[in-house]
Amino acid sequence: MAIILDGRATSEKVMEELAEEAKRLAESGVTPGLSLIITGDDKYSLRYVKLKQRRAESVGIYVDFHQLEETTNEELVSLITKLNKDPKIHGIMVQLPLMEGLDEIKVVDAIAPMKDVDGLSPNTLGKLLMGEECYPPAGVEAIMELFKRYSLDVEGKHWLVAGETNFLSKPLAAYLMNRKVRVTQVGPGCPHLPDLVKMADVVSTELFKKHAVTGDMVKEGVIVIDNGNNYEGKNVYGDVDPAALEKASAYTPVPGGTGPMLISMLLRNTLKAASS
Amino acid sequence: MAIILDGRATSEKVMEELAEEAKRLAESGVTPGLSLIITGDDKYSLRYVKLKQRRAESVGIYVDFHQLEETTNEELVSLITKLNKDPKIHGIMVQLPLMEGLDEIKVVDAIAPMKDVDGLSPNTLGKLLMGEECYPPAGVEAIMELFKRYSLDVEGKHWLVAGETNFLSKPLAAYLMNRKVRVTQVGPGCPHLPDLVKMADVVSTELFKKHAVTGDMVKEGVIVIDNGNNYEGKNVYGDVDPAALEKASAYTPVPGGTGPMLISMLLRNTLKAASS
Repeated sequence: MAIILDGRATSEKVMEELAEEAKRLAESGVTPGLSLIITGDDKYSLRYVKLKQRRAESVGIYVDFHQLEETTNEELVSLITKLNKDPKIHGIMVQLPLMEGLDEIKVVDAIAPMKDVDGLSPNTLGKLLMGEECYPPAGVEAIMELFKRYSLDVEGKHWLVAGETNFLSKPLAAYLMNRKVRVTQVGPGCPHLPDLVKMADVVSTELFKKHAVTGDMVKEGVIVIDNGNNYEGKNVYGDVDPAALEKASAYTPVPGGTGPMLISMLLRNTLKAASS
Repeated sequence: MAIILDGRATSEKVMEELAEEAKRLAESGVTPGLSLIITGDDKYSLRYVKLKQRRAESVGIYVDFHQLEETTNEELVSLITKLNKDPKIHGIMVQLPLMEGLDEIKVVDAIAPMKDVDGLSPNTLGKLLMGEECYPPAGVEAIMELFKRYSLDVEGKHWLVAGETNFLSKPLAAYLMNRKVRVTQVGPGCPHLPDLVKMADVVSTELFKKHAVTGDMVKEGVIVIDNGNNYEGKNVYGDVDPAALEKASAYTPVPGGTGPMLISMLLRNTLKAASS
């Protein structure tokens, strides 16, 4: 029987721990503060950031919310620069993608490394690659937290990172290079995906394609980390076919796997930043 | 017949081009300036930095040389901060490893990204991972320049990065993740090295062990990038056995492969920084 890596249940446990940690911080006179910044007026993104706000407030984090419906690189960078210096703010999260016309690298590069609790800035990603202390992207933290809570080993595994975004797959590969893992990374279009999946002990996917990894591709006992989020109407499907999960020793379900972990990981980084 | 990727000849060509570029810059009123910083009194390192100085001066770069035999993190960071603001200085290189007692990450993190011509800072490495513009470490540039000059393709290859330093193998893997390559990275101690070498189209090694990659490991037609530098008395040997090179379609010799390219790549980054 495969272990189901339950992101909802794990996230709830983490949230309880965070509430206790925030209480301890409050008793020592520190109110953790998180700035949430969203550009443009995309309703889906706005709803997600509002959810982050409610969750943050539910564990006792002060939220400083900014929606910039119209803005420029200069204005956004100047807001971030101000927040970098604000002692009430311990973490800064900018919702990506930015609205059209803004320069993502310039914006994330402005976030001070010690406040980069969502792991977006080049400085953070460089430290992740070097194996130095930093706040890794929530997606990376989510995966490693599930491994930890379910006592799965990373060391010695051959891990296929199938994906290439700057907020998940590439940082994950960078992180794994410091964990005695054989890491193989490929983009979603790679024609050799079947052969690479076949040899992997762990497969993490970010392929943007429903059931792209099929049952015949995986080896028996594989661990599957499915970061897929493929909508068909109201239904959401992972990148990995159920037939592949039948052969897995452990896997993240979709929905209910890594997704629900993301906000709690952001908030945990915020509390770490507030207590350091 | 294998193509021998001749680092000495290529480096000489690059140096000629750099001298012309520096001349053009001088005519437009810019003297490129490079700060070279060395800590402690290791004779071998000092000799190497002095060689960098001579080479830099030979193409018309102004060198600002600092040897700090005794220093502290604070003093070193304060020197770098001063140089970050100095308009005569376009590039800053700190020789690693630092003398005992100094904090490498704190020091390299102080170098301004736009002057980090040796690609040591977390900011640079993060940009490399993201596929953003930056000055990659000289070791990475050396390899990619040899590929370019000998018209070897990167795209579509399966590249085994066997090594895990912060100045070569991990940044190389990060860079390759943005080049439509299947990248597999492992540390030198990996027991699965033979299997991984077998499947690779390109093998780059940083194994610190004479002839660790043997003839039976590689596949016919492999491209070998040997970054080994293993001394036995006055002789230097690569990480790859000559029997493996016999099966290669192209390889870097040791000595005379990537090593001689390093200084010219540092200087090229310096000229780029001076002209931007």
